Amino acid sequence: MNNSTATLLVSCPDQKGLVAKIADFIYSYGGNIIHADQHTDFQQGLFLTRLEWQLEGFNLPREVIDPAFGAIAKPLNATWQLHFSDTIPRLAIWVTKQDHCLLDLLWRWQAKELTVDIPLIMSNHAKLKPIAEQFGIDFHHVPITQETKLEQEAKQLELLEKYQIDLVVLAKYMQILSADFVSKFPQIINIHHSFLPAFPGANPYQRAYERGVKIIGATAHYVTANLDEGPIIEQDVVRISHRDTVQDLIRKGKDLERLVLARAVRFHLQNRVLVYGNRTVVFA
Amino acid sequence: MNNSTATLLVSCPDQKGLVAKIADFIYSYGGNIIHADQHTDFQQGLFLTRLEWQLEGFNLPREVIDPAFGAIAKPLNATWQLHFSDTIPRLAIWVTKQDHCLLDLLWRWQAKELTVDIPLIMSNHAKLKPIAEQFGIDFHHVPITQETKLEQEAKQLELLEKYQIDLVVLAKYMQILSADFVSKFPQIINIHHSFLPAFPGANPYQRAYERGVKIIGATAHYVTANLDEGPIIEQDVVRISHRDTVQDLIRKGKDLERLVLARAVRFHLQNRVLVYGNRTVVFA
Amino acid sequence: MNNSTATLLVSCPDQKGLVAKIADFIYSYGGNIIHADQHTDFQQGLFLTRLEWQLEGFNLPREVIDPAFGAIAKPLNATWQLHFSDTIPRLAIWVTKQDHCLLDLLWRWQAKELTVDIPLIMSNHAKLKPIAEQFGIDFHHVPITQETKLEQEAKQLELLEKYQIDLVVLAKYMQILSADFVSKFPQIINIHHSFLPAFPGANPYQRAYERGVKIIGATAHYVTANLDEGPIIEQDVVRISHRDTVQDLIRKGKDLERLVLARAVRFHLQNRVLVYGNRTVVFA
Amino acid sequence: MNNSTATLLVSCPDQKGLVAKIADFIYSYGGNIIHADQHTDFQQGLFLTRLEWQLEGFNLPREVIDPAFGAIAKPLNATWQLHFSDTIPRLAIWVTKQDHCLLDLLWRWQAKELTVDIPLIMSNHAKLKPIAEQFGIDFHHVPITQETKLEQEAKQLELLEKYQIDLVVLAKYMQILSADFVSKFPQIINIHHSFLPAFPGANPYQRAYERGVKIIGATAHYVTANLDEGPIIEQDVVRISHRDTVQDLIRKGKDLERLVLARAVRFHLQNRVLVYGNRTVVFA
Repeated sequence: MNNSTATLLVSCPDQKGLVAKIADFIYSYGGNIIHADQHTDFQQGLFLTRLEWQLEGFNLPREVIDPAFGAIAKPLNATWQLHFSDTIPRLAIWVTKQDHCLLDLLWRWQAKELTVDIPLIMSNHAKLKPIAEQFGIDFHHVPITQETKLEQEAKQLELLEKYQIDLVVLAKYMQILSADFVSKFPQIINIHHSFLPAFPGANPYQRAYERGVKIIGATAHYVTANLDEGPIIEQDVVRISHRDTVQDLIRKGKDLERLVLARAVRFHLQNRVLVYGNRTVVFA
Repeated sequence: MNNSTATLLVSCPDQKGLVAKIADFIYSYGGNIIHADQHTDFQQGLFLTRLEWQLEGFNLPREVIDPAFGAIAKPLNATWQLHFSDTIPRLAIWVTKQDHCLLDLLWRWQAKELTVDIPLIMSNHAKLKPIAEQFGIDFHHVPITQETKLEQEAKQLELLEKYQIDLVVLAKYMQILSADFVSKFPQIINIHHSFLPAFPGANPYQRAYERGVKIIGATAHYVTANLDEGPIIEQDVVRISHRDTVQDLIRKGKDLERLVLARAVRFHLQNRVLVYGNRTVVFA
Repeated sequence: MNNSTATLLVSCPDQKGLVAKIADFIYSYGGNIIHADQHTDFQQGLFLTRLEWQLEGFNLPREVIDPAFGAIAKPLNATWQLHFSDTIPRLAIWVTKQDHCLLDLLWRWQAKELTVDIPLIMSNHAKLKPIAEQFGIDFHHVPITQETKLEQEAKQLELLEKYQIDLVVLAKYMQILSADFVSKFPQIINIHHSFLPAFPGANPYQRAYERGVKIIGATAHYVTANLDEGPIIEQDVVRISHRDTVQDLIRKGKDLERLVLARAVRFHLQNRVLVYGNRTVVFA
Repeated sequence: MNNSTATLLVSCPDQKGLVAKIADFIYSYGGNIIHADQHTDFQQGLFLTRLEWQLEGFNLPREVIDPAFGAIAKPLNATWQLHFSDTIPRLAIWVTKQDHCLLDLLWRWQAKELTVDIPLIMSNHAKLKPIAEQFGIDFHHVPITQETKLEQEAKQLELLEKYQIDLVVLAKYMQILSADFVSKFPQIINIHHSFLPAFPGANPYQRAYERGVKIIGATAHYVTANLDEGPIIEQDVVRISHRDTVQDLIRKGKDLERLVLARAVRFHLQNRVLVYGNRTVVFA
């Protein structure tokens, strides 16, 4: 039996009958909905929904679903994404020297917590190459300096194209991407080691220590042209005390970073995240 | 303008087209859905949903909604509840001697966090009568002994009927209700001062201390004939350490009890809780 | 029997033998230590400690303890505070229109969670006067405008002197104190309705909503001349989702504010907080 | 320079002067205390303390510290442990088929979060042998059946002796140790996948799902003859909802198990845990 599912993520101006219209579309072709969730932002007058249904028994050929739904969606001024669970997305992980987020993602991938292909690890340092080799993943060392940044970004874009990458995860990649790069490849998730909007930019643990906060956090967000200001997907925190040094904050923070990034990547890969403005709806 | 809404809570055996059918029902009469959420328990083959829509502009007269929906629901073997937001439920709070949960609920009621009428406070002790007076609520002192329990429960049922009570909240009521009472008045929420199923019954903080746990909790649940085994609505926890005595656990636990009970009562009053088997779905 | 205790809070440059010297001082006069905790900030070379011992059986007359300890402390370049548990501190609560933190503190005071006298409630509005009356506490209405601020602060200082206030708690007092005021009366705890340093200043819930954070917080801190930048005593957070409106954030935040402020005030009143630089050690 | 430290963990009946006496001992030989914490359990009349000081500049030869302290401790009826930070403890990790806790511990060991030697991985299955090989650690496969349990436990004890193991960590070892084994080798930490004392024994996630709890947990504890009843070192929890299946609980629980076990092992290896009765003091 075919366990594959289709998922629609839809946003449109709010109006009467949206739930009924979209559910009718699926039902009329015999689809069995296994997840449906929606949210209305009344302030913005925006309706957002996620519907997932089984392809087994669905009478519309796969390649016709998108145009057929488009005939319903366009009069509603809707934007939508259609995903099939058996089309496995391709992920590139970018790192610098720290391995904790990288290893955590790879373990989860091996444990089948993440349904994804990971054909490419990219780094501005050579240090983590052995991990790539251990997991049988291509590793590309693309060093970056102030002077070479633009040409190296061109090289990075080539790699993303060559490996047909759908999503880049910055798993402690300690370089800032140019606005130009982000506009050309906008599907990027970053983990920032603070509870944003507190402590954006460099050295958040040092600054958290100096400010004397009692709780630290980590934030996974989509990357935009403005550093650490993209739409937040997931955050979490951990309590600290006066006994914790900056090194303790870094150690405790690593555990947060691993968990928060993994949750955000999983939500994205399961097509549970809808961005609107600078906000996300996570249909968890 | 009329801001009133109608809410349907529906459970039925899972099958294709349920979302479409129920949404169509509301749309066909011009209803504007403001909240829709559903859950399928695939293990049990059960579909559960909550739909809330504006009555303004809904073309079906209020008194006809229930029979009209019944015509759709019965062929689906569904059970359902229909609530109107302008029908304010009537709440009785039962207490013994501790005032923290009582005051917390009354503050939230005054602050309009809880849309409810509270005509009755009932206690097996006289101690908290002044609080009832301060808030202008009738207070009934119904002392209970081993011998008088049955007749006093009869009196309690009379009070519930007289005051037309829809929901009883046991806000630290330190008496066990008989199975007979619960069968006659099943709409009861209790706050238990432990992280159930750990430490059911008496003295949970003392026992938590003795067991040396590092975290304590509180649990709000519907009352059934089996002590502390009813469907759980909400739980929360707080970290403790070896420095905390039993008195500290009690103090920290009081804050948990207040929060957990208030959240559960609010979920119930907003018709967000569906019970099936010994579980709840909370459409939060 | 006398259950009173003495508490020493000491800071001094780190050196060998500090624990021994201070513990010897107490032991040599027959003191029974019931709490001892210390912290060394190696970066700053600073030793901080809290010692609490029973006065029953302590052979040094109460009025001699401070000078006697001074003879030990001065050669160590220490600063210290000496407190007696039977000297009840006097607290003034300042509010504007919101009552949740005020009610919560008053309830804890009645429940004997806070060992304190509360002779004064001060507000720039008259709205909460009935609560003061209900608890038998003097209420002073001191309205503030841009023009009257300085003279009204003079009046506020008079009130603090008249009522012999030791600590001011800003329980949602929506006015900024002048640097001059803070320098004249520095013992002030404020509750800020965000997870500082995120969202200092006005409208933090609105701004948290707009930023799309997934967690909100509250922060209790000592007030300094720089708005929302004083030493943090306690913080806590609660998870939110896309379903939460600004109003939901405000409602959820109120519960945080109550808990965080109450914990901070309790820590302070139990002489568990030592400030150094812009940080606190909380000997909890 | 020598950064090594000595740590004393002491328990004795409470009496006056204990802090002074023990601190004096260290100071009199020129020791610089870098961590001191104590706790008095007034109910039990028990004093417990942890002191850590630098060996550099400490005038007592290392081998004389224990007998010298004994001369002070014995009149106090104290029990004590003396540890040197440069004596690296030797850890054996026992597993069955699940690798998440094993990998997590090994990663922390490599990242120098855990100061420990790990010469031995033992399992009742062969599945995880490749991980041992990858990290260059001896792997012993000791299958267990009802019939062979006793003889295999003898073999396990031999292995522990041969490898001079100080601590066994059961990192999802799905076998119950006999009381006899535990009495012969009592230094064992286990991770149990529930919030004990809820759901001891088999299938806690399944049972948590069936009970309909809203929060799940994990517990790290010392192993005693009574299954899942030993002294708790650390616990943590995560919120779940009706949308989570048993498989989701298992997945979310794995993250908890990793964190909770790692924290407990770290506390133990840093000699921060004192057991008394069935409780622990964790001088974190």
